[in-house]
Amino acid sequence: MSGTSLDGIDVAIVDIQGRRIQPVAFHSTPYEERVRQAILGVSNTTATTAEIARLHFLLGQLYAGAVQQACRRSRIPLNSIRLVGCHGQTIYHQGEKAPFLGRSVAATLQIGEAGVLAEQLGVPVVSDFRTRDMAAGGRGAPLVPYVDYLLFRHPRKGRVALNIGGIANITAIPPNAQPAKVIAFDTGPGNMVIDALATEFTRGRQHFDRNGRIARQGRLDRRLLNRLLAHPYYRQPPPKTAGREQYGVEFIARLRKLLPLQDLITTATALTTAAIALGIDRFIKPRMRVDEIIASGGGVHNRTLMAYLQAFLPNIRITRSDEFGIDPDAKEAVAFAVLAYETNRRRASNLPSATGAAHAVVLGKITC
Amino acid sequence: MSGTSLDGIDVAIVDIQGRRIQPVAFHSTPYEERVRQAILGVSNTTATTAEIARLHFLLGQLYAGAVQQACRRSRIPLNSIRLVGCHGQTIYHQGEKAPFLGRSVAATLQIGEAGVLAEQLGVPVVSDFRTRDMAAGGRGAPLVPYVDYLLFRHPRKGRVALNIGGIANITAIPPNAQPAKVIAFDTGPGNMVIDALATEFTRGRQHFDRNGRIARQGRLDRRLLNRLLAHPYYRQPPPKTAGREQYGVEFIARLRKLLPLQDLITTATALTTAAIALGIDRFIKPRMRVDEIIASGGGVHNRTLMAYLQAFLPNIRITRSDEFGIDPDAKEAVAFAVLAYETNRRRASNLPSATGAAHAVVLGKITC
Repeated sequence: MSGTSLDGIDVAIVDIQGRRIQPVAFHSTPYEERVRQAILGVSNTTATTAEIARLHFLLGQLYAGAVQQACRRSRIPLNSIRLVGCHGQTIYHQGEKAPFLGRSVAATLQIGEAGVLAEQLGVPVVSDFRTRDMAAGGRGAPLVPYVDYLLFRHPRKGRVALNIGGIANITAIPPNAQPAKVIAFDTGPGNMVIDALATEFTRGRQHFDRNGRIARQGRLDRRLLNRLLAHPYYRQPPPKTAGREQYGVEFIARLRKLLPLQDLITTATALTTAAIALGIDRFIKPRMRVDEIIASGGGVHNRTLMAYLQAFLPNIRITRSDEFGIDPDAKEAVAFAVLAYETNRRRASNLPSATGAAHAVVLGKITC
Repeated sequence: MSGTSLDGIDVAIVDIQGRRIQPVAFHSTPYEERVRQAILGVSNTTATTAEIARLHFLLGQLYAGAVQQACRRSRIPLNSIRLVGCHGQTIYHQGEKAPFLGRSVAATLQIGEAGVLAEQLGVPVVSDFRTRDMAAGGRGAPLVPYVDYLLFRHPRKGRVALNIGGIANITAIPPNAQPAKVIAFDTGPGNMVIDALATEFTRGRQHFDRNGRIARQGRLDRRLLNRLLAHPYYRQPPPKTAGREQYGVEFIARLRKLLPLQDLITTATALTTAAIALGIDRFIKPRMRVDEIIASGGGVHNRTLMAYLQAFLPNIRITRSDEFGIDPDAKEAVAFAVLAYETNRRRASNLPSATGAAHAVVLGKITC
């Protein structure tokens, strides 16, 4: 898995037998700065087709290397790996259809050539998970809810799985729910805005607000927070997805004019958590009881963020996915291992209630 | 199949049982001019990532539509189709490795999202045929030689399958050959240069030189022809591939300064055929007897071109693939149906002797 935060490549090694899902190792390989810049380059503005194609193949090599490294570090022989799921790096995502050359198309583009992984690792690879859901009328996201459902459903408890990556998203699983009853959507920014601001604040020495220390020392501007929360996205009912487009370069540039950097980081931290709380209050609580939130993603290490979250949701128990045997940093990567497994078994694994697809489909492409 | 000539989408419906390959229908759907322009736009220069992603999904729709149309026209029920092979539209191809961000990468990019085809047609789709061969160190091209070998090998005759598409390529199959003895490479331009010049000459009313009429009325400039043939590509031993890069906008612009358009078209027609003859004389004849040439591709309809070819190769019988039950316009499309079938059976179908790959691999990705 490599997410919109562009911090690098997450490899989860997972032992899956039927419905038993057992993470056994996790390893992260950060992107080199020049790779990160190249990805940002093709994601934000115009690019040459050559650059995209080369990056596509280069990332295939880097992903294969990351899997090899994860195996070495965890002393798991590479030849015991049976299947690889590779999300790829999203360089474009437009979940909603829009007119294009006389037709109506939604579009997404993940790069990281699966053929390179299959060749270097000698195992089948499942890739390109999002496209088929979009072909079936879905937004191609979120896809993790299906795995959240497998991992966290409970006969009596209502649970919300919360992932705070670049974007924050939730999967709400009512007690004893059928898949169709699961509600899932992106609540808004996760760490993306905080990361961009923290990078500026530390002049590139850090790419995130370690432990939430910067945010803790800044001032929360409630007026700005309320203005940001007034954006129609937060009021729009699910299913819905947010992306780099919404909280990228332009969003940051507009914020920069309004407050000193440190106060912006505090306010952005509040925005992430307030948007999560707002999403749960507005769209989940009216439909189910919420006994606990199971948090994962890089955001769980941001203490200021987690404190704000508890403050915005005073009556809900907030736990972390490690309580369920899943490293919070590894959850998205674990999810794509599970999705690859399902595809290899020819099982559908999108949740139409989460993506908006017309029906469930077998996700992705298989490279033998 | 949709080739570098950008004329449109070729659909071949093929009945394959074991080693019996029986083309049953063929239908071409031309690209709308704005689609053609959009593909040229992302192929030649800089593009926005959004445009590439949208075109990727749009082409998926157009390809699916072309298959549906081919079925309707030939009165073959769509639900009798078991598998689709989709080459996609190449928007970038760099068969040789080159330094990139501190690594060495070759790269190729075909667009036309297979998930859209699978969803619209309700059948599995094999796509992205070239990447795995490149991951194994090959140039990702040519891939048709494997199919030429299946179709045309003969116990006593030495045969050369010649395809004159945008680029011209040959597959030389010695009598009673093993796959490793097949020699295949791109000889140089096919119709690409002629098409570009004919489009200018007719001010866009035609995109090719119908029946070779323009070329027949022009003057062949032997000095220019010899200068063009002095390019090192024609002397380089196979395996080798040529592409839009070599004979694209810049090549045409340089030619335009040298001769009147009509004479250029005649000379370009001679270049295509002389380069084919040169490739056969230099790299095939020293290694095998050549009893006949089996021609296919749009170029076979260009009478001036075919006459030049026979003149440049006076002692070889030149036939067309229809003698073998394969419409010359359909051959490339038939080939990718066969390659999809092989992949679906998990059979390797690149010829390392043709692509330069380190070993044979199962080509492509399967969308269920």
